[in-house]
Amino acid sequence: MSHKIVNLRVRDVRFPTSLEQHGSDAMHTDPDYSAAYVVLDTDSGLKGFGLTFTLGKGTEIVLCAVKALAGLVIGKSLQEIVSNFRGFYRLLTSDGQMRWLGPEKGVIHLATAAVLNAVWDLWARAEGKYHAMYLSIQDPKQIVSCIDFRYITDVLTEEEALDILVKAQEGKKQREDQMLKEGYPAYTTSCAWLGYSDQQLKQLCSDALKSGWTRFKVKVGADLEDDIRRCRLIRKMIGPSSTLMIDANQRWDVAEAISWVSRLAEVKPLWIEEPTSPDDILGHAAISKALAPLGIGVATGEQCHNRVMFKQFLQASALQFVQIDSCRLGSVNENLAVLLMAYKFQVPVCPHAGGVGLCELVQHLILFDYICVSADLRNRMCEYVDHLHEHFTSPVVIQDAHYMPPKDPGYSCEMLEESVNRHEYPEGDIWKQEIQK
Amino acid sequence: MSHKIVNLRVRDVRFPTSLEQHGSDAMHTDPDYSAAYVVLDTDSGLKGFGLTFTLGKGTEIVLCAVKALAGLVIGKSLQEIVSNFRGFYRLLTSDGQMRWLGPEKGVIHLATAAVLNAVWDLWARAEGKYHAMYLSIQDPKQIVSCIDFRYITDVLTEEEALDILVKAQEGKKQREDQMLKEGYPAYTTSCAWLGYSDQQLKQLCSDALKSGWTRFKVKVGADLEDDIRRCRLIRKMIGPSSTLMIDANQRWDVAEAISWVSRLAEVKPLWIEEPTSPDDILGHAAISKALAPLGIGVATGEQCHNRVMFKQFLQASALQFVQIDSCRLGSVNENLAVLLMAYKFQVPVCPHAGGVGLCELVQHLILFDYICVSADLRNRMCEYVDHLHEHFTSPVVIQDAHYMPPKDPGYSCEMLEESVNRHEYPEGDIWKQEIQK
Repeated sequence: MSHKIVNLRVRDVRFPTSLEQHGSDAMHTDPDYSAAYVVLDTDSGLKGFGLTFTLGKGTEIVLCAVKALAGLVIGKSLQEIVSNFRGFYRLLTSDGQMRWLGPEKGVIHLATAAVLNAVWDLWARAEGKYHAMYLSIQDPKQIVSCIDFRYITDVLTEEEALDILVKAQEGKKQREDQMLKEGYPAYTTSCAWLGYSDQQLKQLCSDALKSGWTRFKVKVGADLEDDIRRCRLIRKMIGPSSTLMIDANQRWDVAEAISWVSRLAEVKPLWIEEPTSPDDILGHAAISKALAPLGIGVATGEQCHNRVMFKQFLQASALQFVQIDSCRLGSVNENLAVLLMAYKFQVPVCPHAGGVGLCELVQHLILFDYICVSADLRNRMCEYVDHLHEHFTSPVVIQDAHYMPPKDPGYSCEMLEESVNRHEYPEGDIWKQEIQK
Repeated sequence: MSHKIVNLRVRDVRFPTSLEQHGSDAMHTDPDYSAAYVVLDTDSGLKGFGLTFTLGKGTEIVLCAVKALAGLVIGKSLQEIVSNFRGFYRLLTSDGQMRWLGPEKGVIHLATAAVLNAVWDLWARAEGKYHAMYLSIQDPKQIVSCIDFRYITDVLTEEEALDILVKAQEGKKQREDQMLKEGYPAYTTSCAWLGYSDQQLKQLCSDALKSGWTRFKVKVGADLEDDIRRCRLIRKMIGPSSTLMIDANQRWDVAEAISWVSRLAEVKPLWIEEPTSPDDILGHAAISKALAPLGIGVATGEQCHNRVMFKQFLQASALQFVQIDSCRLGSVNENLAVLLMAYKFQVPVCPHAGGVGLCELVQHLILFDYICVSADLRNRMCEYVDHLHEHFTSPVVIQDAHYMPPKDPGYSCEMLEESVNRHEYPEGDIWKQEIQK
């Protein structure tokens, strides 16, 4: 069956997370976790579900961009798309008129991600095997045929990519079994959002420790003395053997990042995340160099807007942890390129997640990374945030601080129809109530 | 008078330039030069006009983004804005929810440019002097107060910026008089779009030479043999003493750029423009290094999305010509930062123009650069394209291949009401006719 796409629907779904300061950090003080949520309808009745994550205001702009891309999708069959997936990726990202709005960055690329995430979901569901998405990307030749190597061949050619993937076939089955049994290691960001009180922070740490968490991330960057107090508090709570990461969400300039983080070295953070502008490759390189003697790495990626930027972060030794995002890059296609480049440079991948749907999506990518690319768990872990999973038909399963491989068909970002209806902005019940307040 | 902004209107204006292949290049084969056109209404009756340039499809997305920013603008007085212009710039670019869509890149930043361009227009018109925009930015302290130095202080601090501007006060009056008399040197891109036939190309070159043009840019990158033929033809037409530039509009990967341009070295181009991805700082650095022995520089900037990227291009010696754009960056505010950084690195600025309204806008920035920053004309020239000027109330004036300083009040991008009405998409007469065809 060809599964011709006959319609593309997109909806503006927003959760009022800012009311309780969930997700608050030094630059995003009041996020309402939201999504541009895409549904592809096919002539076979099969559907594909995709989304891109946003923070509330402006989601309608992403919807507008998704609608602008719809004409390139509707009328195509799934078979047509996946038989030349690289070509389809380029069709969406290189339209002669629309690429001016990016290219491959910002709103138009977030929209591309939403659409392509839905295509990958559809593909996984349509496969004879009717399986979880991460199992769709296991054949080396198929994988490289999905990647647009434009602008990255100076670092990774198609031949090199194929070579990496073919070599990683060895031991694949064992790693898959291992994942099914143990799951993929996770860390939690749920304990220490910037807007939380010390009391809240202590309680959440204590609960998390009881649930088996050993890796914790703390938001910093608004006030140095406050950061020192909060980080000491958490380090004390979690003990010296647990892992602590800190995240500044782009708050600093280069020199300030170095001096501020140096002051926090006493709590022994594994990494400082997003110390400065996500565009500043050379700045991150300077920070990496300055912090290396303190044993602190630099992590970034959730706002790294495409493979060309990741390429340079790797070339410049500007990060020690690659934080891919399932909705910022051009879906699986572009993330595959980044995973392979990270492998080539031997830099561990520790995905960004949280928000709404990011955990559900990115678990597939990191499982793929372990099973089919890196075969390595050292210094690797996937972010986890304990919010909004209840709105998905196949929410992530966390056991003993590990992501358990998803078993349901698809890419795990189908939302409950009722959740979408209630949270649709501005006409859903939740927002009608908020607006009335 | 405070000039309180009481309304912001934005319109989708498109010109069907693709019908005659104007503007065609290796990556944008069928552009319809377009704009998101902003009008600010104030309680005093004074208006501000701004725009951002687009290529047709997707302009509606930029409109949507402008509307999302409108709430941050309406209700503010001009006085309130310009008394803390840095703060207002940051208000638009750092909204806690909307910055996720950038930050400072793509659709949301194009929208910021359109809005801020209108504010600058309004400001110039409102000044007691009621003068051309470039005259609004002459006081050093006022200038630095408009710039957001976030993320660039490792290269340029506020103090250094002020120092540069104060030193350049010397000779300012002579340079202004010189500009009023001679104008600013320009080059033409109108002769050699990729879609033009050889016959058309010869005719246009011949006409341009007669009008006094001595600097010419040719589009390349689609087919090497074709490029060699076209470049030889033009070099023959313009003679050895005229200046020739070539422009690939991001067509190549790094290695390909080096080999392709090396083949074109025989026609002695001054620069190769946009050889690869606009995001690839390290790639441009590699290309610069490889082409330096051939005497060919690298130029880029029309899709360089913010000051953080320009900072790195300068730090990495990745360009030899800085091509600022009046609509890609956050208006005058962000361009001021780039002009000052370029001065610090002693790299000449040669603005991108053309499209619709870009010449009208950018002439102000380059006049400012000469009069108040660089005081230097060596290796400097501003792009000119001979299209669509007739739609503006104060179109650019070119004399003997020089931009003559604009004399009308404002930032020169007010369009004729009739032009806007006829070209509004999709309901204007021009588009109704096209759609009926």
